[in-house]
Amino acid sequence: MTTSTEFDLAEAIAVLTRTPATLDALLRGLPNRWVLRNESPDNGGGNNQAGNNQAKDTWSAFDIVGHLIVGERTDWMPRARIILEKGEARPFDPFDRFAQAKESQGKSLEQLLDEFARLRRENVAALQALNLKSEDLARRGTHPALGVVTLSQLLATWAVHDLTHLHQLSRVMAHQYRDAVGPWSAYLGVLHCAGHSA
Amino acid sequence: MTTSTEFDLAEAIAVLTRTPATLDALLRGLPNRWVLRNESPDNGGGNNQAGNNQAKDTWSAFDIVGHLIVGERTDWMPRARIILEKGEARPFDPFDRFAQAKESQGKSLEQLLDEFARLRRENVAALQALNLKSEDLARRGTHPALGVVTLSQLLATWAVHDLTHLHQLSRVMAHQYRDAVGPWSAYLGVLHCAGHSA
Repeated sequence: MTTSTEFDLAEAIAVLTRTPATLDALLRGLPNRWVLRNESPDNGGGNNQAGNNQAKDTWSAFDIVGHLIVGERTDWMPRARIILEKGEARPFDPFDRFAQAKESQGKSLEQLLDEFARLRRENVAALQALNLKSEDLARRGTHPALGVVTLSQLLATWAVHDLTHLHQLSRVMAHQYRDAVGPWSAYLGVLHCAGHSA
Repeated sequence: MTTSTEFDLAEAIAVLTRTPATLDALLRGLPNRWVLRNESPDNGGGNNQAGNNQAKDTWSAFDIVGHLIVGERTDWMPRARIILEKGEARPFDPFDRFAQAKESQGKSLEQLLDEFARLRRENVAALQALNLKSEDLARRGTHPALGVVTLSQLLATWAVHDLTHLHQLSRVMAHQYRDAVGPWSAYLGVLHCAGHSA
């Protein structure tokens, strides 16, 4: 085991590689309610305290997979290339958190899952082809809001971003049975998650 | 789509059926750090605010799969049978939240994943064999702490319990890169989840 805070490229790739199959196993073929509903208060019933926090900006499983696709196209590898080719001189383009509405229009969840899997496979292959050394991982770029960041921070964020959306997805799905669980709600941590950011 | 708060047995089974493959895709073959570490403060680095909340009772991915196995053996279907056979007269046995330590001893994560998949398959088959009607779903039992509950609430809780542990799992995994993501931590909701209960 490496020390706890150390970034390890092979480990990050192990996480990144598993996300498409995880989402596929969780979502493909699920009934509509579990795929298309978000955390707005009229989904999941009346007595939803945590749910109200997300009412204004809440995503369905469908929206989340669309957002991950946009990230594959415009965020992770494009930013890695900017760091390697331009360094701090060229700030990243801001990421559009709402681009998935256009990206996903007219597609089925199954099409989105296939597309995400293909893009992730291509991006992981491209990352491996860079054959990064530890001195490359320390190279710096400029985030438009956060300032100086390193390539290893970008790649760790790519993996944790997958996990943040898996976290969100389990919460959005659980919300649909917020009332159906009755008094057990008290014991189910996911129903008490305030949502944080996405 | 059914109305939002309504329990639907086929939908609950759709969720329950997907969990073993989801955990398998996410976890099988992952490096040790992502499987055996929990959210204690010495995993994931020093500046972990949210992580400290879980320091006393924090589980690894390995612990979580063990806990799900114990649930398959002692919680869900045994309680469903108590409701159908004895009704409110016979309270459920309390569930042991720490039984997985014994259950998992000496096993690999891969063995636990296989065992969970087998038990879940058997339990879903047993649930389907009960051929429950809507009047059965309204039947009542007695939870040792929560009091009167219905069979549909028990079955909805079984599905949401899976999701609560997927939610926990994504948080425990993300914790390992709490420091590695650098300033991006601010944008990653999973790193700000206080953990709630399990």
